[in-house]
Amino acid sequence: MSVTAAKGFTAAGIAAGIKENGGPDLALVVNDGPRRAAAGVFTSNRVKAAPVLWSEQVLKGGAVTAVVLNSGGANACTGPRGFQDTHATAEHAAVVLEGHSAGEIAVASTGLIGLLLPMDKLLPGIEKAATELSEHGGEKAAIAIKTTDTVHKTAVAGGESDGVAWTVGGMAKGAGMLAPGLATMLVVLTTDADIETPALDTALRAATRTTFDRVDSDGCMSTNDTVLLLASGASGATPAYDEFAEAVRTVCADLARQLIGDAEGASKDIRIEVVNAASEDDAVEVGRSIARNNLLKCAVHGEDPNWGRVLSAIGTTAAAFDPDRLNVAINDVWVCRNGSVGEDRDLVDMRYREVRITADLSAGTESAVIWANDLTADYVHENSAYSS
Amino acid sequence: MSVTAAKGFTAAGIAAGIKENGGPDLALVVNDGPRRAAAGVFTSNRVKAAPVLWSEQVLKGGAVTAVVLNSGGANACTGPRGFQDTHATAEHAAVVLEGHSAGEIAVASTGLIGLLLPMDKLLPGIEKAATELSEHGGEKAAIAIKTTDTVHKTAVAGGESDGVAWTVGGMAKGAGMLAPGLATMLVVLTTDADIETPALDTALRAATRTTFDRVDSDGCMSTNDTVLLLASGASGATPAYDEFAEAVRTVCADLARQLIGDAEGASKDIRIEVVNAASEDDAVEVGRSIARNNLLKCAVHGEDPNWGRVLSAIGTTAAAFDPDRLNVAINDVWVCRNGSVGEDRDLVDMRYREVRITADLSAGTESAVIWANDLTADYVHENSAYSS
Repeated sequence: MSVTAAKGFTAAGIAAGIKENGGPDLALVVNDGPRRAAAGVFTSNRVKAAPVLWSEQVLKGGAVTAVVLNSGGANACTGPRGFQDTHATAEHAAVVLEGHSAGEIAVASTGLIGLLLPMDKLLPGIEKAATELSEHGGEKAAIAIKTTDTVHKTAVAGGESDGVAWTVGGMAKGAGMLAPGLATMLVVLTTDADIETPALDTALRAATRTTFDRVDSDGCMSTNDTVLLLASGASGATPAYDEFAEAVRTVCADLARQLIGDAEGASKDIRIEVVNAASEDDAVEVGRSIARNNLLKCAVHGEDPNWGRVLSAIGTTAAAFDPDRLNVAINDVWVCRNGSVGEDRDLVDMRYREVRITADLSAGTESAVIWANDLTADYVHENSAYSS
Repeated sequence: MSVTAAKGFTAAGIAAGIKENGGPDLALVVNDGPRRAAAGVFTSNRVKAAPVLWSEQVLKGGAVTAVVLNSGGANACTGPRGFQDTHATAEHAAVVLEGHSAGEIAVASTGLIGLLLPMDKLLPGIEKAATELSEHGGEKAAIAIKTTDTVHKTAVAGGESDGVAWTVGGMAKGAGMLAPGLATMLVVLTTDADIETPALDTALRAATRTTFDRVDSDGCMSTNDTVLLLASGASGATPAYDEFAEAVRTVCADLARQLIGDAEGASKDIRIEVVNAASEDDAVEVGRSIARNNLLKCAVHGEDPNWGRVLSAIGTTAAAFDPDRLNVAINDVWVCRNGSVGEDRDLVDMRYREVRITADLSAGTESAVIWANDLTADYVHENSAYSS
């Protein structure tokens, strides 16, 4: 599982002392080759953390030999000093790992915004992690990048090409500030398939577009979102593009679902499917509007099939629809038909964690699924006390 | 105060039995003339309640002789039957008030979406309200339109023209689903100034653009928002347009501030001022993005001057700015300078209900103020239990 499921990768996760509670907070993932192809997708927030600015540059080269990730501090909004710290992190890792170039080392950080990282702890932490690199280190790496995540997240998929097995594995952290473009999260995917950088990039962008970009826990977009895909070629397998892309999508979808399942304070996972839209963009816009409606999120928390709040959310979009032809189902009960009262809302059973909302726009044939969470007192508590 | 502060108006507020708790739930406001000029602004939600669809038509005629308002049910998403009920409400009021035309009677409703109104209670309620119409009825009318409002809201302003006094008064209800375009609310303003419909309309639109359109309690836009301005001409005063428009703006700003001060579950009122923006549109876009950031709203609730969440909200907009030139003050302490750590966050005192956030985009000279609320466990509680 995790980032060492694929051949050609070693990883480690250790406690460097960045987190005040002494928990694991530093992960190292190394691509031992023979190939070092890589692709990356980053937050679309215009306020980008130092490690995002750094790693975007690294990825332009199309090769990544190692990734240093830390929890306990986002290194965002930290000015020139913060960028120097990220640069120093990559330089130090290049020295420690020997024979590596800082320009091929990606860095990712997560935690509080606006604080400088304790470099006196982070740099020695890289040395310690390097001594613990292992083909079985993926699990520990996944644990070390957690912030308010209650569980670590890993996934794996793969296939066979000409009788040679290949694998795509990955790890993710999420929990809060999860919203499109991307959700707040760090994700590292690895594969031992032999894939060139352009195909990696295409597969990764296609996968994130319909997975990580379609989870919306709290409508808040992070400054640090990073998804990396590294290919070692160590399996010797060269899968067909479609088969490989599907495996990448499977792993991303699996991890995205895990992010929603462990979102801060959430008690419900909400699957919002918009159907019969005039375009996919319309379906996504409507899905996101529903996903971000605080009143609806509260209603779902209260197990109240309040379809009026779904309609009022749809009504704020520019999507093509006629208000009198909107239909809404909650857990498959069509409580709203033709923009008005439909089946008996008492038929809706909302006791389980997963709640399904279907919005039928009656305007075309396109559809999209957005995953969201309910809004709870626990979310408020967790996020009003986070930095204190 | 309220809608009977201006001469030429009578009003009443009674309990018609629409609300299950037996509280006041029906208000009637009548313009006794001599003029019946009127202007209206309605929700920009594309899913509009029946009374909004009806009143939009009425306002096209430029004359309103009476307004029937009810709480206890929004009559939204109620299909053709809901519209027939609104029509019947206006027709019945026209008969009861004698000499009135249904086409000049506006209707406004507030409460749960997706339920038909109990017309067997509402219609007799109009008869009862008509018998109680009084020049002192404004306060009772303001009380009758409350839903989850804890207090009723009224405001008044005015002036003198050629030695003749004139007045603008108003009432509002709000509490939840408060977001731009407009906030969820019903507002009726009255004036005894002698103003023609076009000038009323211009003054009302100008006033709502910078007041009701700039409060954002929970990012949710209602299906029922209605703001009406009725002019009786009863004072005989004909104020200069600018003076009149300023009085309308004053009353709207006062009522808007009261809406934020009584928003569902809120413990803080947040005044977000965006300064040095390249355009007013940019300032409003940034202000709204900050106003809707759930993580920031939680931080304010926790009295945590978490400026990183302000920056991450700014970063999601398309406004002109350089991330390295952003400055943020919380209660006048510039905790973020040049996109990075500024003054000591421990200097920020957030004990009081009003919290001021200033975002300096360093991109121009335009500015805007948006009012918002914090996000609390009480909000979650109130809105997860609302319809049950």
